[in-house]
Amino acid sequence: MSALKSPPPASRRSGGRDARRAKRLARIHYMLATLENKLPPMELLSAEQLDRLHEASMTILEEVGIDFRDPIALGQWREAGAEVDGQRVRPDRELVMELVRTVPAHITLHARNPECSVEVGGNRAIFVPMTGAPYLCDLDNVRRAPMLDDLANFHKLSHMLPALHSSAHHIVEPMDLPVAHRHLHITYSSIRHSDKTFMGMTTSGKNAEDVMRMCRILFGEEYMESHPVVTGNINANSPLVWDQVMLSALRAFSSHNQPVLCSPFVMAGANTPASVAPAVAQLNAEALSGLAYTQIVRRGAPAIYGHYLSTVSMKSGAPMAGTPEISLMNAIIGQLARHYRVPWRTSNTLGGSKLFDAQAGYESATTLMAVLAANANYIWHSAGWNEAGMHCSTAKFVVDAEQCAMGHRFASGINWRDFDEALAAVRDIGPGGHYLGHPHTLGHFADAFFAPELFDNSSIEQWQAEGAKDTTGRALEYARKLLAEYECPPLDPALDEALLDFMRRREREIPASNELNQSF
Amino acid sequence: MSALKSPPPASRRSGGRDARRAKRLARIHYMLATLENKLPPMELLSAEQLDRLHEASMTILEEVGIDFRDPIALGQWREAGAEVDGQRVRPDRELVMELVRTVPAHITLHARNPECSVEVGGNRAIFVPMTGAPYLCDLDNVRRAPMLDDLANFHKLSHMLPALHSSAHHIVEPMDLPVAHRHLHITYSSIRHSDKTFMGMTTSGKNAEDVMRMCRILFGEEYMESHPVVTGNINANSPLVWDQVMLSALRAFSSHNQPVLCSPFVMAGANTPASVAPAVAQLNAEALSGLAYTQIVRRGAPAIYGHYLSTVSMKSGAPMAGTPEISLMNAIIGQLARHYRVPWRTSNTLGGSKLFDAQAGYESATTLMAVLAANANYIWHSAGWNEAGMHCSTAKFVVDAEQCAMGHRFASGINWRDFDEALAAVRDIGPGGHYLGHPHTLGHFADAFFAPELFDNSSIEQWQAEGAKDTTGRALEYARKLLAEYECPPLDPALDEALLDFMRRREREIPASNELNQSF
Repeated sequence: MSALKSPPPASRRSGGRDARRAKRLARIHYMLATLENKLPPMELLSAEQLDRLHEASMTILEEVGIDFRDPIALGQWREAGAEVDGQRVRPDRELVMELVRTVPAHITLHARNPECSVEVGGNRAIFVPMTGAPYLCDLDNVRRAPMLDDLANFHKLSHMLPALHSSAHHIVEPMDLPVAHRHLHITYSSIRHSDKTFMGMTTSGKNAEDVMRMCRILFGEEYMESHPVVTGNINANSPLVWDQVMLSALRAFSSHNQPVLCSPFVMAGANTPASVAPAVAQLNAEALSGLAYTQIVRRGAPAIYGHYLSTVSMKSGAPMAGTPEISLMNAIIGQLARHYRVPWRTSNTLGGSKLFDAQAGYESATTLMAVLAANANYIWHSAGWNEAGMHCSTAKFVVDAEQCAMGHRFASGINWRDFDEALAAVRDIGPGGHYLGHPHTLGHFADAFFAPELFDNSSIEQWQAEGAKDTTGRALEYARKLLAEYECPPLDPALDEALLDFMRRREREIPASNELNQSF
Repeated sequence: MSALKSPPPASRRSGGRDARRAKRLARIHYMLATLENKLPPMELLSAEQLDRLHEASMTILEEVGIDFRDPIALGQWREAGAEVDGQRVRPDRELVMELVRTVPAHITLHARNPECSVEVGGNRAIFVPMTGAPYLCDLDNVRRAPMLDDLANFHKLSHMLPALHSSAHHIVEPMDLPVAHRHLHITYSSIRHSDKTFMGMTTSGKNAEDVMRMCRILFGEEYMESHPVVTGNINANSPLVWDQVMLSALRAFSSHNQPVLCSPFVMAGANTPASVAPAVAQLNAEALSGLAYTQIVRRGAPAIYGHYLSTVSMKSGAPMAGTPEISLMNAIIGQLARHYRVPWRTSNTLGGSKLFDAQAGYESATTLMAVLAANANYIWHSAGWNEAGMHCSTAKFVVDAEQCAMGHRFASGINWRDFDEALAAVRDIGPGGHYLGHPHTLGHFADAFFAPELFDNSSIEQWQAEGAKDTTGRALEYARKLLAEYECPPLDPALDEALLDFMRRREREIPASNELNQSF
């Protein structure tokens, strides 16, 4: 594929073994460049409608207000000039917008391998795998509780799958570790098994501070102050509540100049009005208040307009994925974020099925196409999400990642480089001929049309002869093959030891009893 | 759903039994209105690039030329002023564009039930089920040869599924009938089992004439001359060939003022250059030459810019579905068709899988989202297509149709009617509340968010308790339920008898030996 970017060789030393190793790495370890989305953003709002939505959000903040259930935050809002009444903050629109204006429009996320650094904002976008699953469907397609080794496998797959730009963090919850120590091992696994960018745990302010310390070990304190190296997600409890856990984690990230995703957690119809535009009016008020607060913590700190979005079945109360209303909301949220000139995060390839079946495929592809058309920047949950996030499917993980590679190709737009050459082929072939042997076809053989590895397009006879495998079967074979070929990216042994030292010390300091927290 | 359109009661007579029957019909027999697509069309071409493509197509027609392998057509082209050399026609751009300009921009397709008439062109779009499958996966999910009864079942489902606007024609090939007589029974089955619009067979000029005669019986000769009532598809044999079978069928339709779809049959890379824009340059030349020819046959006859589009795997030569290049081609073909101000046809929900599995879901949803974003008008193959068109899957048929209903909702855009009312709910609920019991939520319960019947969003425990069904299992249950509830729409017995009389006569006249022809 033309957009592939090979990493530098694993070692600068010459010699037979290293050269062979470098060659192997170059073959199996690669990453697509940051997506430069060439699709015209789907704009569904007229200028007047956009203004109406914006005004509604401002009115919600000014008149209804939003709870910041955290004494530090309340003090900071008061000092910034907002009306504070108990836990309720009612910032006026001038204050909110003045703060949001200093959120940077673009972020470069620096990976420990500089070749894997990526950009977010404007028309630049990245795919980040799912996180937070309490179960997995494993390499044998068995649904069970995940262990640290399972998480490591997902980090290895994230490292190897070209459309994934990040190893994220707790793709699955490592249930074999005490809750209070998990954030350390999750962060280490993200760092150790991949040299792409990653996410940091926000399960508490203290845990987020530990992530900051591990990043300082890895990147150096000075570097980190001026370079975004890790993202953290902060959920609002919709409607209109930011809680202390999330706000203290936000402060850990923002105060160190690291980007937070300010993500209202929306189950539309349950915690928002049951209507598309009004739900977004509330979500927008929530997201903007979070973004504004990052700028109170540190002016100019990078931050991302976020949301987690589902619609709720009015029959059963269950959250749904891939629905028309989610696609509509994505389009208008994107338009709002561009209006505010801030990068924005959405969720991708979400599925509600208990199996990796046709339902999962429809839901996932619908969402992928919707978020590409909406020009989302930080495209999270891009691999593995099924059963409304209750499990990460190994089979779906690798198929979703291939779909993201196809989405990357689609959104990269049309190649005009060979236009005249190809038209000359039309002259050569003429009516009734065929192109398969023509020099233009042979010259563009490899990259003309995306041919997915994991989809079968052969005849039924050939498919039967090859074992009549379904998508799940093919995908699990592929995942096994990748894991068998995996090679750990190099990490300076001194840094590795320093990270492990830090973890050992913190494990001694933190009592191994705590409760499970998740962030989506 | 708010967009539902109930048909008139089956009978105008009052009375208990009829009233109950009418009530039952109103419940199970419905159709979504013509889609008025509110999505801004995805425009990928700059004005300059569009011009470059158009010029390339015109140059292909003028300098390479296109074969019309039919003496009548060659004579007509010569008379119209084109350069004709053997079977090769080289029409100049002025002639082509002068002819294309008289193709109507909008078509109303009149159904025998006027409530089921639909519009095509501009931003008006309809979903038409797949056709042409030599196999089916049946109600037991068994792949086998289809019979006339199977075709009838698909016509019944098309009648009952609200997002399908047409019963099409040979959704599956009725293998229990002689090839030479099939077109009669297929047409009758389309007409008899549904009062939505339908398609006419184009397997030969004579067969197409038989379709015209059956339509004259149904609609009356005079009505038909001024009202489009049936569509026919005409494939070009890419590259750059129109054959006698297709051209004689085209003449049958166009001369009776019935719309033909002028559809180059593209397997990009095999019968076009292996590159997106040049493939469209050739396809555009082919489609425009077909549209132009319809206007030679009859000035002002309705016609539709068509294509069948796949990309070919450069590894195996197999056609693929749901690829990024197909999405890109759809976008630019749509832009060209709008430039020419002609309605355009595309293919929807195509799948290459042998099973109704995740692959089929991804491929189908990708294509649905791409063609909605491209603002296609005549969205064919919208239900059932799998295995590259080799089989029509009953399970996929009903799921695809529900996906089209979801696509219909998405492309219908945002409802602003309850905006202020819903914002008042935000005030009522405030931070930390929930909306499920609020009067606004209760008032919008039924139509707030699309809840697909065929997707399962319940918890794993509930799903297991309900039998742990996959999408295929749920879909087949649903198809059986629909067929059990089916009631045949009323048809004037005199018309019915006249149609059957005609068929009996033609069966006596046509020898029951012929070969299989398909059109896609």
